[in-house]
Amino acid sequence: MSKNFDDLFAKLSQIEKKKVSVAVAQDSEVLLAVKAAKERNIADSVLVGDADEIKKVADEIGMDLSGYEVIDVKDPVEASLTAVKLVHDGEADMYMKGLLDTKLFLKSVLDKEVGLRSGRPLSHVCVFDMKGVDHLLFLTDVAFIPYPTLEDKANIIRNTVEICNACGIDNPKVAPLAAVEVVNPKMPVTVEAAELTAMNERGEITGCIVDGPLSLDLATCPESALHKGATDRKIVGDADILLFPDIHAGNLVYKGLGHFAQVRTGNIITGTAAPVVLTSRSDSFEVKVNSLALGAIVADSLKKNKQ
Amino acid sequence: MSKNFDDLFAKLSQIEKKKVSVAVAQDSEVLLAVKAAKERNIADSVLVGDADEIKKVADEIGMDLSGYEVIDVKDPVEASLTAVKLVHDGEADMYMKGLLDTKLFLKSVLDKEVGLRSGRPLSHVCVFDMKGVDHLLFLTDVAFIPYPTLEDKANIIRNTVEICNACGIDNPKVAPLAAVEVVNPKMPVTVEAAELTAMNERGEITGCIVDGPLSLDLATCPESALHKGATDRKIVGDADILLFPDIHAGNLVYKGLGHFAQVRTGNIITGTAAPVVLTSRSDSFEVKVNSLALGAIVADSLKKNKQ
Repeated sequence: MSKNFDDLFAKLSQIEKKKVSVAVAQDSEVLLAVKAAKERNIADSVLVGDADEIKKVADEIGMDLSGYEVIDVKDPVEASLTAVKLVHDGEADMYMKGLLDTKLFLKSVLDKEVGLRSGRPLSHVCVFDMKGVDHLLFLTDVAFIPYPTLEDKANIIRNTVEICNACGIDNPKVAPLAAVEVVNPKMPVTVEAAELTAMNERGEITGCIVDGPLSLDLATCPESALHKGATDRKIVGDADILLFPDIHAGNLVYKGLGHFAQVRTGNIITGTAAPVVLTSRSDSFEVKVNSLALGAIVADSLKKNKQ
Repeated sequence: MSKNFDDLFAKLSQIEKKKVSVAVAQDSEVLLAVKAAKERNIADSVLVGDADEIKKVADEIGMDLSGYEVIDVKDPVEASLTAVKLVHDGEADMYMKGLLDTKLFLKSVLDKEVGLRSGRPLSHVCVFDMKGVDHLLFLTDVAFIPYPTLEDKANIIRNTVEICNACGIDNPKVAPLAAVEVVNPKMPVTVEAAELTAMNERGEITGCIVDGPLSLDLATCPESALHKGATDRKIVGDADILLFPDIHAGNLVYKGLGHFAQVRTGNIITGTAAPVVLTSRSDSFEVKVNSLALGAIVADSLKKNKQ
């Protein structure tokens, strides 16, 4: 079971090296990340995009392109479809966004012919290795689904449980979060949290233990949970998955802890046939590398499950 | 201008000592806090409640009641009305909850005869002195108004600006927060944030600079704001007031940062004729004392404004 990013990196040394296919790779920050991923034995890469531009950017950052497969496709949309098809066809293990608009990138992910549809809706998970918590936290959805419905939330949980399993966490504890830990009919979020808990008890959401609504301290701080006498709950400060009410709550917590707590993070898109790395320009170099590491571990797990 | 809680405590030494009236004071944690408030020259107190019980609890915590005014009212509701009337009549400067249900306590605050109505709706503000931010942050509303309307949000801003002013912060910067920093018609929160900004520009919300929607990093981290090129905004990582979309987002950020960042906090109820301290049992001793200090400073400011 991986309890932090060091564990995740250690796990990588035990699995076959993966390959990432990059859409529109002529981006200095993305190239720096895939270079580090290669050097740290996380993943090799196929760089799809304008070969001249890729060469130019690589020169600027002092990156030697020998050892990288470069596929010359000048048009960004065509490049993305070429890159995603490599993953679709099993020639690469995961897919990463380069210098391409997010909407166009996602369009390639969802392409019916060459994309990575799994039948489930896509969601985003951010993995936190945070000082003060002795295990990994999986925050979802802080970036992708603005106002998830009850059914969306059930699917987000299913997607995220798969990521937990890949990280060696079996039967993760899922906390549907709210401002309070009791159901209040005037707060629909708490009603939905209770309904997700009931769905889990009825076997409609499996492979995990759901207990909500929960406030953030009861979900993540054993001392707070004990202080508040929450000993009869299934989660007593030991949640693995933090399910947010909506994108605003999720994103504000993600940014707040990301900036003011001591956190290492990585994030991927889930609900796809293979891991998709969609980092933003504001993500640091380390976040990009951590995300590739996470993608490689998830790719390995998905591959083994298929066999 | 107070930039942290040390500044606030220093400011207290320059003002007249205040007096807090406690409703149903027979509570060990509340008595410990008012004892510390007296010792640290923050405020004297009037303890309203069951005098025998107050004596018993004081003995248990080794508190000498000489120097405290004790008013014997056994019935909790009557005790709260007696205690709030002292503030209403100007015999005490602020009002604090003791061993009383929050609903009953607020009923006394809103009592038409002896309460502390100001004509504005009540809201809650939590003051953060957080490592990594060089000034105080005023988080609102993380505890009181579940789903504020646009008009509620305008009033929350007005209430909180008053608290900022009391802390020596003139013309505070107000960030209506969201997951994103651009208006998206599919996210009503962003539309409301832009509307609050327009209301400020039209002079409908005064004494502050409103700029929203803003993500948390753009509101609180100058480097992130500059990295994202947000130099044309009125707020560039230097917000004073963080206005949350709803209670879930606010409370989750408050709990997250409260537990995993290095933070000193205090909080009060605003929109009242005098400061109201309503701390919860889960608040630490220091939070209670900080809240009393905040209350004393706000009481002093309100008093001076009336003169």
